[in-house]
Amino acid sequence: MADWQAIAGSVTAPKGFRAAGTTAGLKPSGAPDLALIVSDSEAIAAGVFTTSQVRAACIDYCQDLLESNTSARAILCNAGQANACTGEQGMQDAITSAEALASELNLPAGSVLLASTGVIGQRLKIDILKAGIPALVAALSPEGGDKAARAIVTTDLITKSIALETQIGDRPVRIGGIAKGSGMIHPNMATMLAFVTCDAAVSSQLWQEMVRRAAAKSFNQITVDGDTSTNDCLIALANGESRTPAITSAGPEADKLEAMLTEVCIHLAKSIARDGEGATCLVEIAVTGAMSDRAANQIARTVAGSSLVKSAIFGRDPNWGRIAGAAGRAGIPFDQNDLSITLGDFTLMQTGTPQPFDRAAASAYLKQQAERSSLAMSKLLLTGPSPGDTPPVANTPDPLNRQAIEVEALAHPVAISINVGDGPGTGNAWGCDLSYDYVKINAEYTT
Amino acid sequence: MADWQAIAGSVTAPKGFRAAGTTAGLKPSGAPDLALIVSDSEAIAAGVFTTSQVRAACIDYCQDLLESNTSARAILCNAGQANACTGEQGMQDAITSAEALASELNLPAGSVLLASTGVIGQRLKIDILKAGIPALVAALSPEGGDKAARAIVTTDLITKSIALETQIGDRPVRIGGIAKGSGMIHPNMATMLAFVTCDAAVSSQLWQEMVRRAAAKSFNQITVDGDTSTNDCLIALANGESRTPAITSAGPEADKLEAMLTEVCIHLAKSIARDGEGATCLVEIAVTGAMSDRAANQIARTVAGSSLVKSAIFGRDPNWGRIAGAAGRAGIPFDQNDLSITLGDFTLMQTGTPQPFDRAAASAYLKQQAERSSLAMSKLLLTGPSPGDTPPVANTPDPLNRQAIEVEALAHPVAISINVGDGPGTGNAWGCDLSYDYVKINAEYTT
Repeated sequence: MADWQAIAGSVTAPKGFRAAGTTAGLKPSGAPDLALIVSDSEAIAAGVFTTSQVRAACIDYCQDLLESNTSARAILCNAGQANACTGEQGMQDAITSAEALASELNLPAGSVLLASTGVIGQRLKIDILKAGIPALVAALSPEGGDKAARAIVTTDLITKSIALETQIGDRPVRIGGIAKGSGMIHPNMATMLAFVTCDAAVSSQLWQEMVRRAAAKSFNQITVDGDTSTNDCLIALANGESRTPAITSAGPEADKLEAMLTEVCIHLAKSIARDGEGATCLVEIAVTGAMSDRAANQIARTVAGSSLVKSAIFGRDPNWGRIAGAAGRAGIPFDQNDLSITLGDFTLMQTGTPQPFDRAAASAYLKQQAERSSLAMSKLLLTGPSPGDTPPVANTPDPLNRQAIEVEALAHPVAISINVGDGPGTGNAWGCDLSYDYVKINAEYTT
Repeated sequence: MADWQAIAGSVTAPKGFRAAGTTAGLKPSGAPDLALIVSDSEAIAAGVFTTSQVRAACIDYCQDLLESNTSARAILCNAGQANACTGEQGMQDAITSAEALASELNLPAGSVLLASTGVIGQRLKIDILKAGIPALVAALSPEGGDKAARAIVTTDLITKSIALETQIGDRPVRIGGIAKGSGMIHPNMATMLAFVTCDAAVSSQLWQEMVRRAAAKSFNQITVDGDTSTNDCLIALANGESRTPAITSAGPEADKLEAMLTEVCIHLAKSIARDGEGATCLVEIAVTGAMSDRAANQIARTVAGSSLVKSAIFGRDPNWGRIAGAAGRAGIPFDQNDLSITLGDFTLMQTGTPQPFDRAAASAYLKQQAERSSLAMSKLLLTGPSPGDTPPVANTPDPLNRQAIEVEALAHPVAISINVGDGPGTGNAWGCDLSYDYVKINAEYTT
């Protein structure tokens, strides 16, 4: 099934992409705050953006651009100011930043896409940003993916990246990605961003469809979804530099590319969920037997987002009643006599009837999954006075090993399986537990 | 506007109703656990029930009954076992309990409505329940409303009751109510129940419509709504014993009755929200300018339910960004340049633009509202080794004064007003803040 292998390099692993991450001075802390991804040639571009009615200027800017342009050359992302709720001036600042970068790269302004994350209501520090662009462009490198990953984080405890390679027409094709996000919105200082690069040759329409479907199975199935922020976006570029045969219609090659793209997006989405504020573990909900995938996804998301389920998992309490309750209120009709629930290897409920199980062992399973995942996370932590604001990248093993540890951090989810009948629909969702630290982070953060 | 006055007595304030609350032994703690409300004559009955796919036997029992019967004589409610996820046997137990009560009251079984709250997956202790019925019936009293209110609580910190009186045709008409609930589902040990009595003469269809609309404006607008439990229900009886002219069609009398009914339901709903697990204050969201009331209600509910908004309020942080973010993701289209937000008397955002305001004073407002409300709450607490499991009713001032303190506890909400345009739609929602104690209660409660 997994017809690909992990490789080093994140967004600069695919051919023809360079990236950079620098400190322009947008964050008070002096941590990296400006990231750039550039394709050496015109790349097909697809974007998925926040559905919130309250949107940052960069979101409107990209959506407008991608309505007329199907390709792009660069993604410029700043951290520090979200440029949301900043009105006409916010849009003008977005345009100014795109023009400044385009001028430095000697490209038309319309080939630059934008993303921002940081404090809502704050304008871009546009003069500082513009002043930082020459150094950012000068730092562009085919090994720059990790630096870009570092420059887009805010409250994240770890950076998030991945790169996979497969073969199409006997030649390697690669997809890489970086992301940031704290698993929940945090509108004063965070958001969910993901940037994906690919060197396959693929038609614009096909790429857009693939990206939309991959986002639906990944970023839209983590708890961030319900809490979409003002700045959420996924931007995916495909530049054809692999020189593999062009994929222009459905078929085995298209399926292969889409499967790998989906894997990249799911990895980044899970990594965001695992890094949820205050989280001690990753929670994976798998729903089967629903009338449709949409129905299964809805149930999975509802259970993953339930504060009561999340609190119980933090308390290492195998509380099937809360899981049943959350599944029941998802707005999807099913017969409660069809409801079965398993936690890891423990069957908690079978066709509507609670089952006897070893509570101590089930609780130990919850504890063990959290410990395994936390051990790996501890090797990836960005250290310093406050998460996300540290100038240096600490605890960084070599890139490929780092990515392996990131995979390990996601390899021990608390696994909850829910069957609701004999329908064909299946769906997955990911979340995290709800801890004292979530309340602490969000109650004691003062604006 | 408020064309009524508060009176003592809750569900036994209206003429022709008696009630009782006793200890049958269904709760391990020995706290009261069996409640009964009886109308001396046939009463028009209306019910609103959980929409969850996972429902307790009593919910199915009542829904089935009310499909054929438009009237009832009695409501029997037990606390201790939820009788949910108990299959065919659960329904048989429900039928047995209704028949046992009907026999003792010398009524047809079809005139008894049922409600349960307690541990999901546990059958009714049917023998103990049956054995308790003679004493319960013997305890029926026209002053028994408060005892009934006490016997339906589980994790609640306070009991919830109200009675109002107005004039129809120059004669007094009364509506009383009791409720239980902890502001969130808590499927192993709680749910939201409300019982309302009325002595007006009103046609069945009109009463059902009034009850549905009143529930939509009250119980469906507290954060319990999204988290509907297996056992949630509102049952409302109207017996005509006021001997006032029958209300059979829309008009001033119907409006007057519905307004008072809505007030009773809103009071009970707010009281549930204020008693939310770990809550330190009541939060009231008022939305105006939406395209419809439905749209306004949806925005209000989304903001009231946002974990980020709730955490900020617990942190006494006037965080307008989180309010704007929650409003924006409610699924209701509006122009972000129309968005205005006030907190108490502080304007935080005006037509899409953040406004300068005194942060310290706004934070002090949040603190003050919590303190005022908590002071009143402290006078109402059911004391004992663990909340809800205390045998005696402690701290109980005389009934009318007690109800006045309950009103005082709800009189100082954290008030958030949101305008989204110039549409005619308005809506209100109520919730509470998210504190360490919420996580503590829900993480450390072991099944």
